[in-house]
Amino acid sequence: MTLFGTAGIRGPVEEVTPALALAVGQAAGDPDTTFVVGRDGRETGPALAAAVEAGLESAGSDVVRIGEVPTPTLAFASRGRKGVMLTASHNPPQDNGIKLFANGVEFDRNAERAVEDLVESDGGLESVRWDRWGESSTLEVLDAYRDAVVAYVREQFSSSSDGSADETPLEGLEIAVDCGNGMGSLATPHVLGRLGADVVALNANVDGHFIARESKPTPETLSDFSAFLETGSFDLGLAHDGDADRLVVLGPDGEVIHEDTVLALVAAHYTAASDAEDPVVVTTPNASARIDEQVRNAGGHVERVRLGALHEGIARERRAAADDDETAVVFAAEPWKHIHTAFGGWIDGVASAAVVSALVAAAGDTETLRAPVTERPYRKVSVDCPDDAKADAMAALETDLSDGFPAAAVDTSYGVRLEFEDASWILVRPSGTEPYVRIYAESDTVDDLVADARDVVEAAIAASR
Amino acid sequence: MTLFGTAGIRGPVEEVTPALALAVGQAAGDPDTTFVVGRDGRETGPALAAAVEAGLESAGSDVVRIGEVPTPTLAFASRGRKGVMLTASHNPPQDNGIKLFANGVEFDRNAERAVEDLVESDGGLESVRWDRWGESSTLEVLDAYRDAVVAYVREQFSSSSDGSADETPLEGLEIAVDCGNGMGSLATPHVLGRLGADVVALNANVDGHFIARESKPTPETLSDFSAFLETGSFDLGLAHDGDADRLVVLGPDGEVIHEDTVLALVAAHYTAASDAEDPVVVTTPNASARIDEQVRNAGGHVERVRLGALHEGIARERRAAADDDETAVVFAAEPWKHIHTAFGGWIDGVASAAVVSALVAAAGDTETLRAPVTERPYRKVSVDCPDDAKADAMAALETDLSDGFPAAAVDTSYGVRLEFEDASWILVRPSGTEPYVRIYAESDTVDDLVADARDVVEAAIAASR
Amino acid sequence: MTLFGTAGIRGPVEEVTPALALAVGQAAGDPDTTFVVGRDGRETGPALAAAVEAGLESAGSDVVRIGEVPTPTLAFASRGRKGVMLTASHNPPQDNGIKLFANGVEFDRNAERAVEDLVESDGGLESVRWDRWGESSTLEVLDAYRDAVVAYVREQFSSSSDGSADETPLEGLEIAVDCGNGMGSLATPHVLGRLGADVVALNANVDGHFIARESKPTPETLSDFSAFLETGSFDLGLAHDGDADRLVVLGPDGEVIHEDTVLALVAAHYTAASDAEDPVVVTTPNASARIDEQVRNAGGHVERVRLGALHEGIARERRAAADDDETAVVFAAEPWKHIHTAFGGWIDGVASAAVVSALVAAAGDTETLRAPVTERPYRKVSVDCPDDAKADAMAALETDLSDGFPAAAVDTSYGVRLEFEDASWILVRPSGTEPYVRIYAESDTVDDLVADARDVVEAAIAASR
Amino acid sequence: MTLFGTAGIRGPVEEVTPALALAVGQAAGDPDTTFVVGRDGRETGPALAAAVEAGLESAGSDVVRIGEVPTPTLAFASRGRKGVMLTASHNPPQDNGIKLFANGVEFDRNAERAVEDLVESDGGLESVRWDRWGESSTLEVLDAYRDAVVAYVREQFSSSSDGSADETPLEGLEIAVDCGNGMGSLATPHVLGRLGADVVALNANVDGHFIARESKPTPETLSDFSAFLETGSFDLGLAHDGDADRLVVLGPDGEVIHEDTVLALVAAHYTAASDAEDPVVVTTPNASARIDEQVRNAGGHVERVRLGALHEGIARERRAAADDDETAVVFAAEPWKHIHTAFGGWIDGVASAAVVSALVAAAGDTETLRAPVTERPYRKVSVDCPDDAKADAMAALETDLSDGFPAAAVDTSYGVRLEFEDASWILVRPSGTEPYVRIYAESDTVDDLVADARDVVEAAIAASR
Repeated sequence: MTLFGTAGIRGPVEEVTPALALAVGQAAGDPDTTFVVGRDGRETGPALAAAVEAGLESAGSDVVRIGEVPTPTLAFASRGRKGVMLTASHNPPQDNGIKLFANGVEFDRNAERAVEDLVESDGGLESVRWDRWGESSTLEVLDAYRDAVVAYVREQFSSSSDGSADETPLEGLEIAVDCGNGMGSLATPHVLGRLGADVVALNANVDGHFIARESKPTPETLSDFSAFLETGSFDLGLAHDGDADRLVVLGPDGEVIHEDTVLALVAAHYTAASDAEDPVVVTTPNASARIDEQVRNAGGHVERVRLGALHEGIARERRAAADDDETAVVFAAEPWKHIHTAFGGWIDGVASAAVVSALVAAAGDTETLRAPVTERPYRKVSVDCPDDAKADAMAALETDLSDGFPAAAVDTSYGVRLEFEDASWILVRPSGTEPYVRIYAESDTVDDLVADARDVVEAAIAASR
Repeated sequence: MTLFGTAGIRGPVEEVTPALALAVGQAAGDPDTTFVVGRDGRETGPALAAAVEAGLESAGSDVVRIGEVPTPTLAFASRGRKGVMLTASHNPPQDNGIKLFANGVEFDRNAERAVEDLVESDGGLESVRWDRWGESSTLEVLDAYRDAVVAYVREQFSSSSDGSADETPLEGLEIAVDCGNGMGSLATPHVLGRLGADVVALNANVDGHFIARESKPTPETLSDFSAFLETGSFDLGLAHDGDADRLVVLGPDGEVIHEDTVLALVAAHYTAASDAEDPVVVTTPNASARIDEQVRNAGGHVERVRLGALHEGIARERRAAADDDETAVVFAAEPWKHIHTAFGGWIDGVASAAVVSALVAAAGDTETLRAPVTERPYRKVSVDCPDDAKADAMAALETDLSDGFPAAAVDTSYGVRLEFEDASWILVRPSGTEPYVRIYAESDTVDDLVADARDVVEAAIAASR
Repeated sequence: MTLFGTAGIRGPVEEVTPALALAVGQAAGDPDTTFVVGRDGRETGPALAAAVEAGLESAGSDVVRIGEVPTPTLAFASRGRKGVMLTASHNPPQDNGIKLFANGVEFDRNAERAVEDLVESDGGLESVRWDRWGESSTLEVLDAYRDAVVAYVREQFSSSSDGSADETPLEGLEIAVDCGNGMGSLATPHVLGRLGADVVALNANVDGHFIARESKPTPETLSDFSAFLETGSFDLGLAHDGDADRLVVLGPDGEVIHEDTVLALVAAHYTAASDAEDPVVVTTPNASARIDEQVRNAGGHVERVRLGALHEGIARERRAAADDDETAVVFAAEPWKHIHTAFGGWIDGVASAAVVSALVAAAGDTETLRAPVTERPYRKVSVDCPDDAKADAMAALETDLSDGFPAAAVDTSYGVRLEFEDASWILVRPSGTEPYVRIYAESDTVDDLVADARDVVEAAIAASR
Repeated sequence: MTLFGTAGIRGPVEEVTPALALAVGQAAGDPDTTFVVGRDGRETGPALAAAVEAGLESAGSDVVRIGEVPTPTLAFASRGRKGVMLTASHNPPQDNGIKLFANGVEFDRNAERAVEDLVESDGGLESVRWDRWGESSTLEVLDAYRDAVVAYVREQFSSSSDGSADETPLEGLEIAVDCGNGMGSLATPHVLGRLGADVVALNANVDGHFIARESKPTPETLSDFSAFLETGSFDLGLAHDGDADRLVVLGPDGEVIHEDTVLALVAAHYTAASDAEDPVVVTTPNASARIDEQVRNAGGHVERVRLGALHEGIARERRAAADDDETAVVFAAEPWKHIHTAFGGWIDGVASAAVVSALVAAAGDTETLRAPVTERPYRKVSVDCPDDAKADAMAALETDLSDGFPAAAVDTSYGVRLEFEDASWILVRPSGTEPYVRIYAESDTVDDLVADARDVVEAAIAASR
């Protein structure tokens, strides 16, 4: 059974039912562990949270209800214990989902599998003895979380002259934030204001119907917001998805700044600020080479892990660092999703909003900040490939692509990734859910590169049928 | 399926599971109804309450959490809406249960059956559409309930001279209350104190382990309490079960006063105080004829309904009264369980504690209060009878007993009940769960009476095999 | 002492101190009354609410804390009891204030004076005896309030064909709401959405610093919002002050619609919808004659009361109506502040937002809705007048103005108000706080009219020195 | 001004008013400190807690409301921050009081004086700027506290064989607890039950009227409880005052065990269990020499500090220990009031109840436990002495008593204390509030000893007039 997808359990509430939530709670809980339980603003959140609570408590866990919070707030509150977040992130309002956390970090694959096995086992979901069932309490955690983000950013951007923290590093910045009726409403405008910015918030009314725009922030769903930025005199626009783990950054003209550029800029900041000899940034294979460029220029290097597994990458790099304390993971990110490792081990769109704003404030404006980053053309292409041919085709492609592009460095950890001297790159991977092999490429001559790669890929697939 | 017994759903939590509680909530809820959800102090209460909440909300109902309360408080809070109480009453701590209320009254058999049918139907338990799921809120209702009991008793026992309410009708009374670690702890000592009594409470620490004594108050489990009364100088002892619907009354010497005597005294009070031309008291077939005597003396009469169906009896008598407004149901009770109809349609041990205390205060002491009641010897005897012979035997006994005791008035509504001029009575009923026909009798010559009845019963059974 | 101004107690927290709040609570409370206590989102709200609570409870009142709410929500929750709202409405963030309510209506002058007298009396502020001090509880009232507004508007705008309520009278309407970081954030976007509108909210993040714009909504402070409307495709813009009693309405082009026009349109709606023979609208002397025009056209008439005394006007008219049930107060309003009398006796900007939106929906667009209203030029002029000359001057002006404008009808209830056949009007009143007599006028030839009136006024002042 | 007595601020609520509570809050608070605020069950608690909260927040402190708790629970919750407890301990119900804590320890004299100075200063009580006022939140802390006591006692009484904690060191013990309608109701019966005891609780219904007995536990007020013990078969009786800092221990026969004996037994336990080379027990001058005997026998020694200053004594001894780590303060206590230094720096009657019970369980019964302690006759005598003669008289007595009892060791730190070889002792001190010099003595020949001392004292007073 694959209860958990790349982002936890997620789907329409006809599938993510109270009975399933109860079972997940019963599978995850035990008498020695306390769980915080939070939820985003969806209409179905109260019932599913109650069902998870019932499951956890009957499995022996005490439950601390923290109510409606951003996902990063739930993660923050799960430090030293475990946590369950009821959220479907940026999915439509009729969906919901379940994310599990342990000590501030999402469950890894093994922990998820243990829950899956119990949920589907027949005999696995028994309650503990009556005298070991857990209790519930409530906790207001939002203030503590917002204080923590504010303190973290103040410390990160303390003035170098005397080392004392700058209370308002965002002083003078005019920021517009589109919270998309989601959980960011409860944290981001407040945090930016505390850090000194003038903030105008759009759609900061929490609404489980996502009444103003679709929850997923894209250039299309943000068109109202872009128009608002264009007519105003803002330095910056910021937009969240429904549970505020994700951040989109827009320029004063309302244009969305490419997610890989944002990632590269934050990565460069953390690399440059690090005391480590060889600071490490963890990202995923589909992320642009501009990240590598920026991190390299700042004195560090990039490591890649499979999609949705940033926390596993952090853990791996930290184990490596334990043998050789001259490296340190200073940042880990997928496009739109950033883990500020010095703050905590979770994806945190609120912290990202504050950090990106502080980088803009330090640079003066977004143009100056972006100037060092070269944005090359990018393509993503799908090549037909039957599921049963994928394995052979990919095996062949390890050699074929290497042979076809002798100038490139080859990495076969997650698909086949080729990197060229001029920062061009190609990634070839089989789709996990559809009958395709996918080619990602970024280069000043991207169309030629993709055409060449496609020839090699199609040949390998033909040979594997 | 017979999910509901005579006292709702009740059993060990290996049977009354969170999954069952979720299903019952889903079956009982609908988008047009708000439910209050309460629970007694059992260890398994928080999880089961959360499960019920999840079910109700996914069926569209809003839920108002009222936390740990006596069952009568939940009933009080369910007026104008519906309610669910998680309690196993006086069962051992490893049990729990679910009681449903509508507008202050327990679900009748039809309403229970509708829930049962949905719970066991395969397709019945679907959630409503995502945008109709209910929300939860919390409410502190205990103060309002305690205030209501206090106001009710003040009004009931207002001084006749000027009609103004006596604020402290219990002034001067010394009362010991054994709350048995149950929910009465939260209401009864407080209410009695507000009404002017000096109160010493035993086991008013709520404890889901029932650490001090078994939850069911019987002469055996109350032995510590009896000893305490005996050494003290109290006017009265009162004891509750775990959820405070039930009340046991003890004299200053620590002896338990017979439940039928208590019932008779309260019934006589309400009958005498009524303005109706023919006040009605509703009780059950197993209740003593001393009740009839007292009610008759006070100017009213008694109607009987089957065990566990007092609220249905009240409804029936009220329908009758609608045609003929010279009757009114002034009280309804089974042994230990009293419905104070002018206060509300639920069994209320807290109100009973206050009313009985006020009767003692008015009489001066328990001896004077009890003096008018004649307590005759009582027997309960089981006669072997195969289940498949019960119907024929009971049919025959309607005639046989009538023939055998020609001096008695016969009532065949619930078994065969014979009443004699001297207030002696016999009740013959088949057991609902065991292979017996049972004979209940109360009389100054009870052993002779039982022996005579037994002969008739055994003959009828023999003829029916 | 004049603790209470025209809008309750209000000022910087160096004046509206916790000690004052405690004293006001102690003066207002008594053992027979329960108070709800709410507050807006100001930084100083929690402390002042706690101080008021301490005062009320030590005076014997029970306190129900309802937390951060719009002022109309507090008023709603005060029905059947009393209420205290900590708010400085649209004042700057360093201010706060105290408003008292009884049964849904602001304290009248007499009730305020009783509190003032106790606060300034030396011996007046004693606590009651220890055993009569009040208790506190908390209540979530926002949902009930929002439900009530939604139900009210649905009923008001039910389809005439079959009388059944239209669930979504705002279907198809695109509305932008600027909540100004105030309490409207918690109600207005939600209510409009429930009624079927597409809603985009600006500044719906509650922030005690009013981080986005000044709390008072004026064309200047709403400039960002106007620009947003202008670039978008909205049917309507709505803006609130800090506590959401006040509503400003903007057209699709971002222009503020005159407050008297809004008032006239709502008044006309209620008048037309009324079953009364002579529906009454209550307003204040400074409100435009266009209101009278619209109400007259709809079959009713207007009564005026002094500024800040709408509820007293309602009471007066209702007393009149008691003798003559062919009149009824269908609406009462000052510019920006509307009392929807069929909904409740308080100023309610949330209800106004929904009602105005429904009128736009029914008309099709704001232009069509506004078409029947003639907006004439308006002037407000201050003429120097020493305080000690005001009384004589105003006395003289009653005759002088009447003589000077023989064609006008004269009303001397609140200053001297002249009304002309063509709906032109002049109001002359002394300022309550500054050394001026003020002239208000509205007319197609307003400058001539003011010049003429000014001559008369200056002459009267000169004669009174 | 001496706002604070030996036990904080305490008195009738006509003196301990909301205005005073507000002022104390304002004096104690500051923007860098969070305060927990709790209260006992008195009727006046909610209002005074709200007033303190208002003061603290207007001085800039955030407030965490923890509701009704034992005083030791408030102290526990004040670790790492500060705390205010509204309690008048065992005073009558018409009183209330204010105790201040910092990091788990009561304010010392200097900290109290700083608050006093601000409260009485005219200009001292200004609020901070509006944007620095504090916020409030609520926290449920009782479970965490009870868990902590349980864990502490399990660890203290872990079985020596394998070092593993004994989960139920009280297994088999029958304990009766009289909670006196106070805060102990919420902790002690639960904690003892969790540790394995069978517990029967008397007066565990929290009641601000102290309806069952006076709040101060004395042989007189505990007479009902003694009778209850006498008729039962309990191993032990325990009684608390209103806020559960104080503990009284009774034998199975209902007799109160002398407070100095209890103190000596607990002190001996901690001394014997300590790893320190010279364990120190801190107590007060009025405490019996039997304590010294027991501690000496167990391998430690006793240090004395003035009454009400145990925490200052602990601090002093710890400073000493810092130079010489072979000492350690293992316990500090006044009669009835115990600080379990390894658990926390506060007086804790709940922890004492559990520790004393565990000592009884380990010994088998109270008789065996008490056997090693010799209880000598004790007297307390008051000698008339005008206030203005006290200083001279005490100065003279330092020499006179030394001369009069040449065999005794003399300590003049807190009055004049004489200790004899046979453990007899005399303490002579002036009363702080009344015109007496007091003589305390304990000896097998106590009457002779007091008579001799009285002669010396009266002579010194006569010479000082």
